[in-house]
Amino acid sequence: MDAALPLPRYIDATDPSPLSFSVCSLVADQTKYDRLLASFARLGFTPENTEFLAADNRNGNVFDGYTWTKTLLAHARGRYVIFCHDDVELIEDGYDALLGWTDWLDRHDPSWLLAGVAGGIYKPGGFKHRQLALHISDINGADRRRGTVPGRVETLDECFILMRRTRPVISSYDLNGFHYYGPDICLQAELLGGSSYAIDFHLWHHGQGQKGRPFRQLRRRFAGKYQHFFPGRILNCTTGPVILGAAPPAAPPVEPGDAGPA
Amino acid sequence: MDAALPLPRYIDATDPSPLSFSVCSLVADQTKYDRLLASFARLGFTPENTEFLAADNRNGNVFDGYTWTKTLLAHARGRYVIFCHDDVELIEDGYDALLGWTDWLDRHDPSWLLAGVAGGIYKPGGFKHRQLALHISDINGADRRRGTVPGRVETLDECFILMRRTRPVISSYDLNGFHYYGPDICLQAELLGGSSYAIDFHLWHHGQGQKGRPFRQLRRRFAGKYQHFFPGRILNCTTGPVILGAAPPAAPPVEPGDAGPA
Repeated sequence: MDAALPLPRYIDATDPSPLSFSVCSLVADQTKYDRLLASFARLGFTPENTEFLAADNRNGNVFDGYTWTKTLLAHARGRYVIFCHDDVELIEDGYDALLGWTDWLDRHDPSWLLAGVAGGIYKPGGFKHRQLALHISDINGADRRRGTVPGRVETLDECFILMRRTRPVISSYDLNGFHYYGPDICLQAELLGGSSYAIDFHLWHHGQGQKGRPFRQLRRRFAGKYQHFFPGRILNCTTGPVILGAAPPAAPPVEPGDAGPA
Repeated sequence: MDAALPLPRYIDATDPSPLSFSVCSLVADQTKYDRLLASFARLGFTPENTEFLAADNRNGNVFDGYTWTKTLLAHARGRYVIFCHDDVELIEDGYDALLGWTDWLDRHDPSWLLAGVAGGIYKPGGFKHRQLALHISDINGADRRRGTVPGRVETLDECFILMRRTRPVISSYDLNGFHYYGPDICLQAELLGGSSYAIDFHLWHHGQGQKGRPFRQLRRRFAGKYQHFFPGRILNCTTGPVILGAAPPAAPPVEPGDAGPA
């Protein structure tokens, strides 16, 4: 009977990843993506230490912001998984700098789950004014700094987000589209009991930042979802604040003693 | 310059899993685990369609209930990932039945994220009496049925939980120990916007169900965490109800007698 037993793989807690990084991108534009690839190669990301995975939107939107990270995470083999837009370009900080930041995060806060380059400072009690933490070059200017990096944030811009493959965070299944998936995954990290950081990893984000009707619609749905769990909170996002309304109607009253001892 | 470009892998939305199932177990006892392996082999789980992964606790607790699923998920290659105790034994339902249930779930509720064999019926508005949905053989009796399976649940017993590898749910990072990780992952599924089901997949769970001091301590920490997000809710768990208190401060104070925020 023992001869018929399947052969299991016994697994311990060490991370056997053969690669340091899985660089995952949502790719719609080949020219932009080639610029990304060349910039990573120039700054120390080699085939020996890094794999590049592309969620293929070149012929139409097969993926949106909430689905592509799940699919690529299931393929990734790196110790750290980076999710970044195809219009990101590394300029000075590279492989060594990024590994240095993961070491810093491990030492500074073992409960870290996400790291990015731009976000809204963590202060769940609320703000009068928007407070961001970032070091980035983008449509608003080269080599911009706001707040203090590294620093804990409550949201991250989705242009660049990093996590550990064996300590993942998943995006919402009840939101879709191309906005707010950075803030969404940060709130999911918070619900999981972990934290998010903006680090000083300077890159170019060549994106435009569109705030049309789909943006406003998704902001409404995003706020409608999270006001259940964080009522009254004002979330600082790189795209502007999001006000979470009061808690929706509560569950019907419960009489004391109904459910037995806790 | 193009010659220097790294070679990315372009990935589409199809799931290329070479296997149907990854059967993952938290293994402390070799004899029990061998019984599990033999029972799966007997009921249609072959090396061609299934891999068996063991979180190796045979020489001490390397893993707890909240860490082992994350580690094994990062190794799993099956389309469906089963997380089950080492003291589970299949008795009549097997490979075909389980694939049939995944088909049923896909048709019945595409937002399903988790499936198990025993849970507390989903009714976030609260209960007067505990209501479970299950079909199981365990220490409480052979071939027991409660409620209706299949049916939506708000918690699952951790003896057997299944998810899709490309639509995962992650356990809390701020809880640890060997209790409540079934209810925890179900609440995380709900926070992600998905649902959980008890299905009619009859098996033996040979476990004892210990409710000592570690159980009560973890219930307190579990309730303390989730009352922030589901204030006033009474959670039906197979191990008994858990009363989530009123929302903690931050929001306007709640008067005695109020069930929760208006």
